Amino acid sequence: MASASLPPLAVSLGDPAGIGPEVVAKCWDNRAAFALPPFVAVGDARSLELVWDGPVEAIDDLRDADAAFDVGLPILHIPSNEVHRPGHPSTSGAHCSLDSLELAVGLARSGSAAAVVTGPVSKQQLYAIGFAHPGQTEFVAERCGISPGNVAMMMVGPTLRTVPVTTHIPLAAVASALNIALIEGRARATLRGLQRNFGIAEPRLAIAALNPHAGEGGALGREEIELIEPAIAVLRAEGWQVAGPLPADTMFHAAARLRYDAALCMYHDQALIPLKALHFDEGVNMTLGLPIVRTAPDHGTAFDIAGQDRADPRAMAAAIRLAATCAARRRPEWR
Amino acid sequence: MASASLPPLAVSLGDPAGIGPEVVAKCWDNRAAFALPPFVAVGDARSLELVWDGPVEAIDDLRDADAAFDVGLPILHIPSNEVHRPGHPSTSGAHCSLDSLELAVGLARSGSAAAVVTGPVSKQQLYAIGFAHPGQTEFVAERCGISPGNVAMMMVGPTLRTVPVTTHIPLAAVASALNIALIEGRARATLRGLQRNFGIAEPRLAIAALNPHAGEGGALGREEIELIEPAIAVLRAEGWQVAGPLPADTMFHAAARLRYDAALCMYHDQALIPLKALHFDEGVNMTLGLPIVRTAPDHGTAFDIAGQDRADPRAMAAAIRLAATCAARRRPEWR
Repeated sequence: MASASLPPLAVSLGDPAGIGPEVVAKCWDNRAAFALPPFVAVGDARSLELVWDGPVEAIDDLRDADAAFDVGLPILHIPSNEVHRPGHPSTSGAHCSLDSLELAVGLARSGSAAAVVTGPVSKQQLYAIGFAHPGQTEFVAERCGISPGNVAMMMVGPTLRTVPVTTHIPLAAVASALNIALIEGRARATLRGLQRNFGIAEPRLAIAALNPHAGEGGALGREEIELIEPAIAVLRAEGWQVAGPLPADTMFHAAARLRYDAALCMYHDQALIPLKALHFDEGVNMTLGLPIVRTAPDHGTAFDIAGQDRADPRAMAAAIRLAATCAARRRPEWR
Repeated sequence: MASASLPPLAVSLGDPAGIGPEVVAKCWDNRAAFALPPFVAVGDARSLELVWDGPVEAIDDLRDADAAFDVGLPILHIPSNEVHRPGHPSTSGAHCSLDSLELAVGLARSGSAAAVVTGPVSKQQLYAIGFAHPGQTEFVAERCGISPGNVAMMMVGPTLRTVPVTTHIPLAAVASALNIALIEGRARATLRGLQRNFGIAEPRLAIAALNPHAGEGGALGREEIELIEPAIAVLRAEGWQVAGPLPADTMFHAAARLRYDAALCMYHDQALIPLKALHFDEGVNMTLGLPIVRTAPDHGTAFDIAGQDRADPRAMAAAIRLAATCAARRRPEWR
């Protein structure tokens, strides 16, 4: 469904008892200041009305979104038998968040929505209703027909992009989970993602070492020699610009960050510590390797502050803005 | 040797072929701008003269240091048969750096120097001449009669202090190297160090989790439950203010850093990534648990840029300033 202008973005509200509805509403309130394009909330309209006094515009067809966006926050309402009170997660809320996600992804797949932005969900509640994926990323990948091994999670901040090779596993399991093919695969997904989503024709990738001081020639661990260096050799032979393995502690300061477009990290906290230390309120999670553009704010449901008007909408705004930018870049007819 | 005013600080130049001499000389050049008290270089005077045109004042007695400091950089000269050219490390240079370290520590031990600040050395060269300690920290501890297990390495930046529980070991070995007693010991050294060196009467310690999301209740690793939480329980029973185990990725942003005086981290990069991402040019390494004050700039010999007038002296200046502040705090008669 190509169109002369960007279709609206589909924004799933996430868990209705979390801060998702509040931050999406605040994004509409501040749509001019945040420079946001039209977007449509997908979820339970009552979860918005419980935390926000602004105008909600229920729509049935995304072609009505642009006009509705001028007068209120457009929503594709997903009915629920229960009221989801802020701060009180439930399995009913989990069903609602899953239905929202499914619909939002479908709209992006069909081209009715330019991209999908996903609000925060409760994994604990989702697991309780039988959700079999580790997280939303894997669910979206499956709905797009992509193997989870071929997607990568990129964390995007104003001055840093990081991608973890391994994600939600114990630290003690990281070294044995690494292998040359996995590192190569994540590196290629990252490099292609930089080209496709960010328009960087010749992307520069920095690959972090696993061990302190990059292993000091093997004295502090051999994964650099046995896994990371061979992967880098293959990537360079393919023509990619790759630096590393770099000592992780000296690759994230301001001058070092200018030398690369993304950092490939070996484990969750190696990627997330610098990103959140530098850009806590503005981090965006982007899934690379999908046929659609998918972003998410880099924060959780924050049930402890839900419904108190304390949630910061900047990460959600950054996720919406980045999704729009990348979608327009990927589809020339939307520019 | 109590005195009405602070004795001079002893600053070992480190490896004479590294950037140590250059950054110490630049500290003297900028002593007013950096607000530095009198200090005395300890090392090979020729290594200074090869990289610096400023005045060098050789002295034999630290009591002459204050007067000498007004006209030049005072040095306790350690003669060497060889010339140590910048950028060309050698075993002769390693002997020189070890002699400098030994003398500087001795001066601090005797009270002739208020504290010791150590310039960067080459571990590789030191190991080649039979140096049997992992690094300068353990050497200083032994010379002070303290077991290496009872000292802790604190990284100090303007808005963050971190202490790693484990240091120079492979990442795969971290989980098995942790135990309750080790975590408790490092925590106590940190808390007492905050009281003694920083004058914080009731220090607040944040203890990082090992695993992503602090292990998510055991799903992503059990070290939080089996090791860190029990250690925290003991520390709290002793009356200490301890928070944790905290997810490592969300504990280093600006607002989070205001909630604690130091962060205890489980491994090298967990402590060093946030410190260097935020404070790359000003990081100071401080050894806690010693009878003397010992600091060091948080950088290495940088042989690749030695002798090119490119080294940044700010970390050395921060190390000298912090050593003076802490020494004065620990010895009321020096205030």
